[in-house]
Amino acid sequence: MRQVPALPRLNTGAEPLVILGIDPGSNATGYGLIEMQRQRLRAMEYGVIRPPRGKLGERLRAIYTGIADLVEKYRPAEVAIERAFVHINPASALALGQARGAALAAAMVEPCEYAEYAPRAVKLAIVGSGKADKSQVAHMVRHLLKLAGPIAEDASDALAIAVCHAHSRNMDSRLLGRK
Amino acid sequence: MRQVPALPRLNTGAEPLVILGIDPGSNATGYGLIEMQRQRLRAMEYGVIRPPRGKLGERLRAIYTGIADLVEKYRPAEVAIERAFVHINPASALALGQARGAALAAAMVEPCEYAEYAPRAVKLAIVGSGKADKSQVAHMVRHLLKLAGPIAEDASDALAIAVCHAHSRNMDSRLLGRK
Repeated sequence: MRQVPALPRLNTGAEPLVILGIDPGSNATGYGLIEMQRQRLRAMEYGVIRPPRGKLGERLRAIYTGIADLVEKYRPAEVAIERAFVHINPASALALGQARGAALAAAMVEPCEYAEYAPRAVKLAIVGSGKADKSQVAHMVRHLLKLAGPIAEDASDALAIAVCHAHSRNMDSRLLGRK
Repeated sequence: MRQVPALPRLNTGAEPLVILGIDPGSNATGYGLIEMQRQRLRAMEYGVIRPPRGKLGERLRAIYTGIADLVEKYRPAEVAIERAFVHINPASALALGQARGAALAAAMVEPCEYAEYAPRAVKLAIVGSGKADKSQVAHMVRHLLKLAGPIAEDASDALAIAVCHAHSRNMDSRLLGRK
């Protein structure tokens, strides 16, 4: 009898998929967890980790444990993060890198899918223009996820990254479907 | 009866103290664990974490889990790391920052003492000159810790940072003793 090899498991959208978006920063690391089922998106939790002023080690621990607690609670299958903008001075790049390193290590402790998006790609996916400003992004995030009231800017950016990833995933699966 | 307040616990050197030295880098992160008892130093384990080529998230996970495994095994009470040299280009600073962030988050998950030393201070503590080259540092590390055979450069640098921290601790406690 001929063995039929198992197909790789592909989430077609019928099962809910949890995506964690992260906007890392040394003073404020935004996070946003969304659930995608078919084309529907729902915000699960979002907020900002603000490490205490003080020693670097303790600040990084705050970022790490903040993200690790979310990963443990929601078990996201996919993680999306903003691509770092490196045309900044070396000291800022080092500080941003440290925050990214702590946040990504926490997100990746359980192996999962991971994607980076340039800020321009996020704006394009959410607002339809790569030149949109932060308030337009925040407005569309609230609209797409049906959230009322103001959202901290870093949390809104993190949700935008998660939504951008959800859209880009949907496009990929439509493209796969056409093959 | 008058209550005598408990004095803060000070390790006077009689109990063994485990120190983890880290020399973080995105391609190679050196580590060195030493045990200090009175003035005596002993190397416990040293080596280099070389993350697999590939996605950033997986590379950072390799650094994080490498350091986290050592922390779990040896439970260092103190961690010493090389101060980052920031007169480099932003892209390199970002890459170094990410490695530092993952390594430090792993080292600090259990709250512990943490210190940074400038490369010059490490060389001064080990060789007696802030301008010593890497081979002189490696030579003195082998001598001080009575290690035979060659040691990978990043591992030797990490051991040097741990030894520098041990020396600086001893000096601090001598200074405290004089008060």
